[in-house]
Amino acid sequence: MSNYVIGVDLGGTNLKAGIVDKKGKIHSRLSIKTHYNADPQTISDQIFKLIHDIIMIAQVKTSDIVGIGLGSPGLIDKRGETILFSPNLPQWRNIPIKEMITKRFVVPCVLENDANAAAWGEKWVGAAREASSVVMITLGTGIGGGIIIDNKLWRGANNVAGEIGHMVIQKDGRKCNCGNYGCIEAYASATAMVRRFKELLKSGAVSLLKNSDEITAKMINDAALQGDKASLDIIKETGQYLGIALVNIMHIVNPEVIVLAGGMAASGELLMEPVRQLTKQKAFEASYKDTKIVFSQLGNDAGIIGAAGCLLKELEISV
Amino acid sequence: MSNYVIGVDLGGTNLKAGIVDKKGKIHSRLSIKTHYNADPQTISDQIFKLIHDIIMIAQVKTSDIVGIGLGSPGLIDKRGETILFSPNLPQWRNIPIKEMITKRFVVPCVLENDANAAAWGEKWVGAAREASSVVMITLGTGIGGGIIIDNKLWRGANNVAGEIGHMVIQKDGRKCNCGNYGCIEAYASATAMVRRFKELLKSGAVSLLKNSDEITAKMINDAALQGDKASLDIIKETGQYLGIALVNIMHIVNPEVIVLAGGMAASGELLMEPVRQLTKQKAFEASYKDTKIVFSQLGNDAGIIGAAGCLLKELEISV
Repeated sequence: MSNYVIGVDLGGTNLKAGIVDKKGKIHSRLSIKTHYNADPQTISDQIFKLIHDIIMIAQVKTSDIVGIGLGSPGLIDKRGETILFSPNLPQWRNIPIKEMITKRFVVPCVLENDANAAAWGEKWVGAAREASSVVMITLGTGIGGGIIIDNKLWRGANNVAGEIGHMVIQKDGRKCNCGNYGCIEAYASATAMVRRFKELLKSGAVSLLKNSDEITAKMINDAALQGDKASLDIIKETGQYLGIALVNIMHIVNPEVIVLAGGMAASGELLMEPVRQLTKQKAFEASYKDTKIVFSQLGNDAGIIGAAGCLLKELEISV
Repeated sequence: MSNYVIGVDLGGTNLKAGIVDKKGKIHSRLSIKTHYNADPQTISDQIFKLIHDIIMIAQVKTSDIVGIGLGSPGLIDKRGETILFSPNLPQWRNIPIKEMITKRFVVPCVLENDANAAAWGEKWVGAAREASSVVMITLGTGIGGGIIIDNKLWRGANNVAGEIGHMVIQKDGRKCNCGNYGCIEAYASATAMVRRFKELLKSGAVSLLKNSDEITAKMINDAALQGDKASLDIIKETGQYLGIALVNIMHIVNPEVIVLAGGMAASGELLMEPVRQLTKQKAFEASYKDTKIVFSQLGNDAGIIGAAGCLLKELEISV
């Protein structure tokens, strides 16, 4: 009986792979730098080598591998076979990666959007275990999301559901990278929080941090933990913006669990407290009192574990 | 073989019932004024009499009735048995109406939120036929909604999904009846449009309509059709607000079809044109180009037909 799945996470900084067992535990892992702007052939070779190497490192027999789950940012075709476009691999357009991997390794493969894969990971063995409906929000450079309805990933009619980051919470508000105005990503992503922090300093607020291009969300978080008022204020405000997005999700989707993930989750209770306060204040009681709002449990492993879990789900291997 | 379902729509103005066949066609209908503030016993008797009378009027044998589908505004318990609270029947609290009807008429009964029932009606035999994912938005005094995912009504973890009207599109914006600020209902419901229109007149805009408490959404629509600029402007602006809500729905749920229903649908292309323009401008192309945005086909019958359809769906009677 085959016992392991290879989970692959095609990140913008690193391509990561792990050997994952049927209980969602990673046994071996490997990470290599992403050749960001490489041609399709180079990237494909990188991915093939990554998968090959992780099998070698883990010293598992190929007969022990159930299949390969692949999580990729960007747009995937409706049939889940082709990466149409990925912001992390700009030269990749219309790459039929599922077929390429299946041919090369002669095992089943599934291709899933990375945010969806991560959401599935949290539902499978993470913060949303036992929930049948989940919305996961990834708070990093941008804001992404994944939705699980009735124990299944909901990808939308065109595979673009769960684009939580581009929900408008302020008509005609701040400009977003997507070209639109007032998206939650333009207020509450790590990048947006840093921008608002710099504006705050510029307006005269006193802080441990000097205003410079070097400021990161992590620095703001560290300063907040040292009691820096400007940093505390900006994280609180970020939580309040996020709270609005969560209220909207509770009104529209009304999931059992909302999972917050990504780099910004490092702020912990500093971020969670205003989120909880705002949702309590503004969501319907029926929704608020029963919706669990939690941080990711799998952290950076959610992509690898989730991609592996998606393969098992696709093959309907009970775990 | 039983051939008919009774669909009942518990509206704030009228209690309506219809004899519906398995193809979603209404054969007889009956409507009585809702005793808005009556005690539970009076309302129950009204509903029983309504069902009894429609059977008499239609001259169908009771053996020909498959069951009764009931659509009610407000909050229904998770098991779909009890009306916990309905804004239209304020004295009704925790009424186990499903059991009451089943006992009285000795046929199966389903109880569904009225917006969900209407959405199901449009999916069954209306504007969203053949779509597997649908979001319906009801534009009346308030704004309601129903969501169908993967050919099933999605009610949410606590039966409060699809509360589209309380999606915030303007943080700290206009006050909404729900107590929150900036909900789409506070901008684009019939009531909100009238309010904005009055403000426009107050600010000096010229119109065929005189500023008074008598102004209704219908009057604004009629004036617009006569070319009244202030009325045209306010309907266009309403469409733009609605457009933002639709963009959010396309980003989060990404349904195949979005159905606009309710009294405001009477504005037709005057309302639809700015909605389409704004979604084209602001939604992702992958979502925009394939999402159908249409008006309800069943109009005021959606509630009766949908409630009947929900009963058939519950009994899994193929149609």
